[in-house]
Amino acid sequence: MLAPRCDQTPAWNALATHFDLAGRPLDLREAFARDAGRAQALSLTAPEVFADLSKNLWDATSRSLLLQLARECRLEARRDAMLAGEPVNPTEGRAVLHTALRAPKGQGPFSDEVHEVLDRMLAFVEAVRAEAGAPDGIRHIVNIGIGGSDLGPQMVVPALDAWTHPQIQSHFVSNVDGHDIVPVLRRLDARRTLFIVASKTFTTQETMANAEVARAWFLARYGEGAEAAIARHFVATTTNIEAAARFGITTTFGFWDWVGGRYSLWSAIGLPIALAIGAQAFRDLLAGAHAMDRHFAHAPLEANLPIQLGLLDVWYRNFHGFTSRSVAPYHQGLKRLPAYLQQLEMESNGKCVDVDGAPLPYGTSPVVWGEAGTNGQHAYFQMLHQGTDVIPVEFIAVRHAEYGPAPLPEAVRAGLADQHAKLLANCLAQGQALMQGKTTEEALGEKAPTASKSLGALTVARHRTFPGNRPSTTLLLDRLTPASLGALIALYEHRVWASGALWGLNSFDQWGVELGKALCSQLLPRFATGDLSGLDGSTAALLQRLRA
Amino acid sequence: MLAPRCDQTPAWNALATHFDLAGRPLDLREAFARDAGRAQALSLTAPEVFADLSKNLWDATSRSLLLQLARECRLEARRDAMLAGEPVNPTEGRAVLHTALRAPKGQGPFSDEVHEVLDRMLAFVEAVRAEAGAPDGIRHIVNIGIGGSDLGPQMVVPALDAWTHPQIQSHFVSNVDGHDIVPVLRRLDARRTLFIVASKTFTTQETMANAEVARAWFLARYGEGAEAAIARHFVATTTNIEAAARFGITTTFGFWDWVGGRYSLWSAIGLPIALAIGAQAFRDLLAGAHAMDRHFAHAPLEANLPIQLGLLDVWYRNFHGFTSRSVAPYHQGLKRLPAYLQQLEMESNGKCVDVDGAPLPYGTSPVVWGEAGTNGQHAYFQMLHQGTDVIPVEFIAVRHAEYGPAPLPEAVRAGLADQHAKLLANCLAQGQALMQGKTTEEALGEKAPTASKSLGALTVARHRTFPGNRPSTTLLLDRLTPASLGALIALYEHRVWASGALWGLNSFDQWGVELGKALCSQLLPRFATGDLSGLDGSTAALLQRLRA
Repeated sequence: MLAPRCDQTPAWNALATHFDLAGRPLDLREAFARDAGRAQALSLTAPEVFADLSKNLWDATSRSLLLQLARECRLEARRDAMLAGEPVNPTEGRAVLHTALRAPKGQGPFSDEVHEVLDRMLAFVEAVRAEAGAPDGIRHIVNIGIGGSDLGPQMVVPALDAWTHPQIQSHFVSNVDGHDIVPVLRRLDARRTLFIVASKTFTTQETMANAEVARAWFLARYGEGAEAAIARHFVATTTNIEAAARFGITTTFGFWDWVGGRYSLWSAIGLPIALAIGAQAFRDLLAGAHAMDRHFAHAPLEANLPIQLGLLDVWYRNFHGFTSRSVAPYHQGLKRLPAYLQQLEMESNGKCVDVDGAPLPYGTSPVVWGEAGTNGQHAYFQMLHQGTDVIPVEFIAVRHAEYGPAPLPEAVRAGLADQHAKLLANCLAQGQALMQGKTTEEALGEKAPTASKSLGALTVARHRTFPGNRPSTTLLLDRLTPASLGALIALYEHRVWASGALWGLNSFDQWGVELGKALCSQLLPRFATGDLSGLDGSTAALLQRLRA
Repeated sequence: MLAPRCDQTPAWNALATHFDLAGRPLDLREAFARDAGRAQALSLTAPEVFADLSKNLWDATSRSLLLQLARECRLEARRDAMLAGEPVNPTEGRAVLHTALRAPKGQGPFSDEVHEVLDRMLAFVEAVRAEAGAPDGIRHIVNIGIGGSDLGPQMVVPALDAWTHPQIQSHFVSNVDGHDIVPVLRRLDARRTLFIVASKTFTTQETMANAEVARAWFLARYGEGAEAAIARHFVATTTNIEAAARFGITTTFGFWDWVGGRYSLWSAIGLPIALAIGAQAFRDLLAGAHAMDRHFAHAPLEANLPIQLGLLDVWYRNFHGFTSRSVAPYHQGLKRLPAYLQQLEMESNGKCVDVDGAPLPYGTSPVVWGEAGTNGQHAYFQMLHQGTDVIPVEFIAVRHAEYGPAPLPEAVRAGLADQHAKLLANCLAQGQALMQGKTTEEALGEKAPTASKSLGALTVARHRTFPGNRPSTTLLLDRLTPASLGALIALYEHRVWASGALWGLNSFDQWGVELGKALCSQLLPRFATGDLSGLDGSTAALLQRLRA
């Protein structure tokens, strides 16, 4: 499909002119004072997610020019092409159809294949879970996978802690570093452990190394009949059934070349999620994502939340020049969401050529980073408030807490209710503080701290000044459930697509990982041989030192 | 002490001229080709840490101008003033003496106080550990603290996994969100749990809320004599002995106003570390840090590793314009090091005024972010290699692995040895790939992947092109031990001081956290009353929605 790149549109030039004419960024405090309807006008409702976009540095003009940009880049037609299964990942010659993984039976492309695997996988899941309480039932699930075969499950399982099977413990091993698997093995009982080897090709270096160590450990620890027991204690999520069989694995769940690794938690790669939360909750996760897919597919551009967020990303990156975005989920269960989003966004859109291979003359993916709130407030929020760079913040708040079915003493429940109110108040206060700031005059009017009395009053006030006008987005969920989490993740997927499509790049390949892999294969034998020929001086010296 | 700010020195102007004259950044590939001695000339040895700085974008001229900058900013005299206990944190009227916490008995300021608490704390630690195996011994340690009272212990304990007591499990609760403490409580046995309440003032909102919930849970679960047992099952690291006593705590370990939160793991805040690894290993951690302190205090500027790293930070931030730095520890035990460094660096140097309160005309702390390698390679390394922005990467590699005392089957040990070689090869290969890159011509010369055949050969090659010349630093440890980890952390502390001192700001205050706290106190009662008066439209609408 031919579509202009964002910088080849009239809207792009109009945005640049609008930005330059303003001379300075919009002042949020003035904007709210001027327009009592601003919060409402700049809020959007999508399935399971309410979004307040009003504390962002945009106004009616910039917003309408951004919409024009979306239209000139033909976003709707390109979205439809993706959803219809056209080969929108040209460098890998593939369609991109993670949305098909969550469509109800009978709907969307590849429905039969998708639901055959899903039904089979969930039947397996229910059988394992039903036995978990029995004396020899499975109580430990160890997912061995890396990148897209790790980050999704690793993020979702703690997020849905309240839904997890009380007798099943989930473990995740990803790093080729043995310091990842060893502490996990220490806590396992071989007879009550199920290992999942998650690798599409069954050749991923890290995953196969860990799988071999897990297998060796299992054989040593299981006792009599260990070889035969491998088929019961190891399963694989892979398309390479032959290689899995050589490993001793007979139970495999496959997926397809139109499922990218970082978009794969909805496929068999979600097996550790389903084992933790059960078949129905896994179906709810899919249904939540599907509801967001429908919103993405059908909501008009101006009410389309993923597309609006993608437009803001372009506005911030290419006009305001912001190079990073901080994600602040005010829910401890979402502590790994920033790591998940680092892969989703930066691996998708961290590219410097467009689909045709032409160098891009503008910045693409920002650095995405963050920790769960309120923890971040006691770490790096200092810099968000008073650092020299503006860093947009994305708050995620959840109205009601879910602590799971285990009974808690009455006094504990009262304390937790109090904590939840504090959590939400902190979240709102941070967005308010970023925007509102504090002038030196205001700081001068406050009682100065005693300890700094030796400094002049003005100096102290300047240290206590906040520039303010720092933008944030707040995403609100009613509860963190399988459905709402599914919707939230799908929202991010489509938003990443939107910014990537505007930038004119291919969000679905990852050629940037190949060079390091190739050089690693060349270096590895040199650790044994000590051959340094042809290496740069630094790599040679480091290799020598590591071998010494 | 009067010292010029970096931008008020002749060296600053000379650096700007040097940078501009070059017209383009130094080409690392050319620099290595030109100078066979480059790797050696740009490597430094500090206690426990070897640093290869040669894959950075500097040469003899820039390096000598940066040294001149350090001298013109009087770094050595200012370092000496800090180490001598002068009040170098003027806005809080305090000295900065975390170095005193790790000085041997009889050396350095406040030695008597420091060692009195340390000896008492370590005696307590050994008593707890000695009983851990007994039927009613402590098997669970729960540290309740946030920010500086959390991140240090939370980072160090898994890093030193091989040194931890096999029968003691460490837990960390920080977030005011109840979803943090609830899953921890579920795994505890009240009679075998020790809670540490870590709050200098014993008033930190999050910590006290979690401590109250822990106390309520303990009283409900312990059974008869619970009230009296609080004094045995709760201790505090605090200076507010009275408030701790009202809580029921009689065992407290204190520290001093010259210990900043983010520099406090060496103080009583390190209690959960000491409980996990034991008294001797904790003393080794201190000794390693002290060795780095001596290097920092005595090595000449050109061989002073923390100062060299601080100079590079300024060079990259203010001349190259890089806004973030990625930390890539190739050791799974260091998985929380990036989060720890986010606080250490961004809370210290994320400031926009100098010590005198004057606005700074240049960028200060970069965003610091990352995940353990090799995991990052399967997530965001795509962007490091092929993104539009240059992001310096800091690799940390450890020559020998340490899997702890638990016996492992022979086949597992062989597999782990193989994994460690792969880990190191990956680490070197990434730094090599970032620097080396791949030209379009080179890519054209390779066999193109079949899937992208429909595209032209040139287009495919452009997708497989790597700009290269992307800088990295490699820090090498021989083993990850208490001593080497102590040295590594101290290295970062002093490096943050160095860049902060060059920027002329106060690295030891954190006024930027105050506004959010104040606004939170004002918002919290409104959750009960629903009062929206005086709020901006966005905050009012969100509050209303959260209450609905």
